[in-house]
Amino acid sequence: MGPNDASSGVSRRSLLAAAALLPAVAGPLRPGTTPAQGVVPSSALPSWNDGPAQTAILDFVRAATDRSSPSFIVPENRIAVFDQDGTLWVEHPMYTQVMYCLERVPAVVAKRSELKSVEPFRTVLSGDREAMAKLSRGDLEKILAATLTGMTVEEFRAEARTWIEKAQHPRWKRPYTELVYQPMLEVLRYLRDSGFKTYIVTGGGQDFVRVYAERVYGVAPEQVVGTAGATKYGYGRDGRPILTKEPKLLLNDDNAGKPEGIYFMIGRRPQAAFGNSTGDREMLEWTGASGGQLKMLVLHDDAAREYAYGPARGLPDSRVGRFTPALDEEAQRRGWTVISMKNDWKRIFAFESGS
Amino acid sequence: MGPNDASSGVSRRSLLAAAALLPAVAGPLRPGTTPAQGVVPSSALPSWNDGPAQTAILDFVRAATDRSSPSFIVPENRIAVFDQDGTLWVEHPMYTQVMYCLERVPAVVAKRSELKSVEPFRTVLSGDREAMAKLSRGDLEKILAATLTGMTVEEFRAEARTWIEKAQHPRWKRPYTELVYQPMLEVLRYLRDSGFKTYIVTGGGQDFVRVYAERVYGVAPEQVVGTAGATKYGYGRDGRPILTKEPKLLLNDDNAGKPEGIYFMIGRRPQAAFGNSTGDREMLEWTGASGGQLKMLVLHDDAAREYAYGPARGLPDSRVGRFTPALDEEAQRRGWTVISMKNDWKRIFAFESGS
Repeated sequence: MGPNDASSGVSRRSLLAAAALLPAVAGPLRPGTTPAQGVVPSSALPSWNDGPAQTAILDFVRAATDRSSPSFIVPENRIAVFDQDGTLWVEHPMYTQVMYCLERVPAVVAKRSELKSVEPFRTVLSGDREAMAKLSRGDLEKILAATLTGMTVEEFRAEARTWIEKAQHPRWKRPYTELVYQPMLEVLRYLRDSGFKTYIVTGGGQDFVRVYAERVYGVAPEQVVGTAGATKYGYGRDGRPILTKEPKLLLNDDNAGKPEGIYFMIGRRPQAAFGNSTGDREMLEWTGASGGQLKMLVLHDDAAREYAYGPARGLPDSRVGRFTPALDEEAQRRGWTVISMKNDWKRIFAFESGS
Repeated sequence: MGPNDASSGVSRRSLLAAAALLPAVAGPLRPGTTPAQGVVPSSALPSWNDGPAQTAILDFVRAATDRSSPSFIVPENRIAVFDQDGTLWVEHPMYTQVMYCLERVPAVVAKRSELKSVEPFRTVLSGDREAMAKLSRGDLEKILAATLTGMTVEEFRAEARTWIEKAQHPRWKRPYTELVYQPMLEVLRYLRDSGFKTYIVTGGGQDFVRVYAERVYGVAPEQVVGTAGATKYGYGRDGRPILTKEPKLLLNDDNAGKPEGIYFMIGRRPQAAFGNSTGDREMLEWTGASGGQLKMLVLHDDAAREYAYGPARGLPDSRVGRFTPALDEEAQRRGWTVISMKNDWKRIFAFESGS
């Protein structure tokens, strides 16, 4: 008996989960500004300004790797987990993977012409971004099912790789993979150099993120934990084994699903965790309950260089980037460190001139 | 929305899957004999006799690590996968985890006295092994649900660890963790020394195997892929986050579930695969389709030192260790290498006197 046997057609669960990726209304698109100038950079974290966030990271690593410290962590337990969207790269004006699904629609319709005049595909084909931003969850489910399932895992990987190499962010006119936060790349590298295994734990699609995570973040596919659908083993026309992506949810890796996914996929408790939204709340709680000393939240408070939303309220009622007042309160109560993009980061992106 | 929201009580799926672990009738219990004496051991595989199986492993590693070879494998793609029961350790007279569940019954009944006079718990408490071997799948489901779910992941880990440290195999009167195959430990180590990541990919319980895999096999928890149930994130009485094991199947890691689990948990294609039963067939096929040059099946043909079953037919109609004629035929057709325990292994266990 395989895990797919009990499946009965398209699961609404998988798609509802993915619908959490619903696009937000796009904010004003301002060009990037010159990065803030800081003091002499630390060698490990050159894009960080001196301040409590940088200090928290440096102190944590120092103690974790110092055998004489009570906070020493044996190497095999050095596990650090990172949310992706809004923590490692830009999540505005909409999650990159949702952009991928929308932009895949023409190719899907070209093969399945019956969809051309059917909603929500007609709206997506129209290119009307305002109408697209108003698509219902049910509409989005249909788009996700059509663009993320039904193909072999190799076909998906090839399609996603081709797209990610050429797609551009509407504001910066650069590949999405250049819109990763340089300070966070430094943290990833610094932790790995200090014997940590760095994991991405994302509400986004696990196999989507795996397409570029090694190249962009230095995170191997087996260290990407994300929302994942089932696959079905079978044989192609030539008799070769294939795995086909099914519209059935295996892991909804957001909110409580993050610690559940960490237990499932890693089987160890994380000692450091980075997030930026309510979707990361349980992951940070679990890290704290595991004795993890480093729990950090990225605050998007830099409307000039990136975006301001959540507590910074630069974008009203955003459905992406859920740094709510309740999360802010919990962060203060539990002593989680908030990273101010505006104050803590010398530069946001590698393509900005460094300090 | 969490993956547990859609669960409605006890899932029959999870338990049916686990019921595949149904015990076989115990074979005759003979004492171990003196191991076969071989030639001068290779330094990497000292417990292997010279022969096609040893040669296949040595040739594979030589080519995989030789940049001038067409079979060179870049380090990040060096993934090797191993079934556990019957491939890395003894699976007779019944899977160790099933033994665990049966032996946990008294402790469960002590807390839930209403089960004492109810089947199948009454039969298990009677200690009548013949009656236990005849338990139906439905009966076994009840035992698995009662012993593997409903507790926090820490409680489970503590219970399983305590048991595995003191439980003994009925034939050898030694801990199960000493009944690992010394030649396979050497293969695991040799592959790791050659830059491979070694994964256990087991139909057994993922979190059960993780309890001892690092100590016994040198395989980290995050490199154990197995049949896994869901957990549910919540808060204990003291407010601390807890994960509770739920009777809901997430991954049925057997047969087609093995390549599906490998895609899900690892996200790379394996280059070497070791199994011993039809449950490993799809994993070996997938490895071959991925260009993997090393596909091996352990044949239990050594009734004196271990057991003989499957093609060797030492145990009739075994429900454990499904090395069927069809698997034998496929192995020959696809060129998979069969490891004869009798001929290829100088010794089976570390506690035997070496050659």
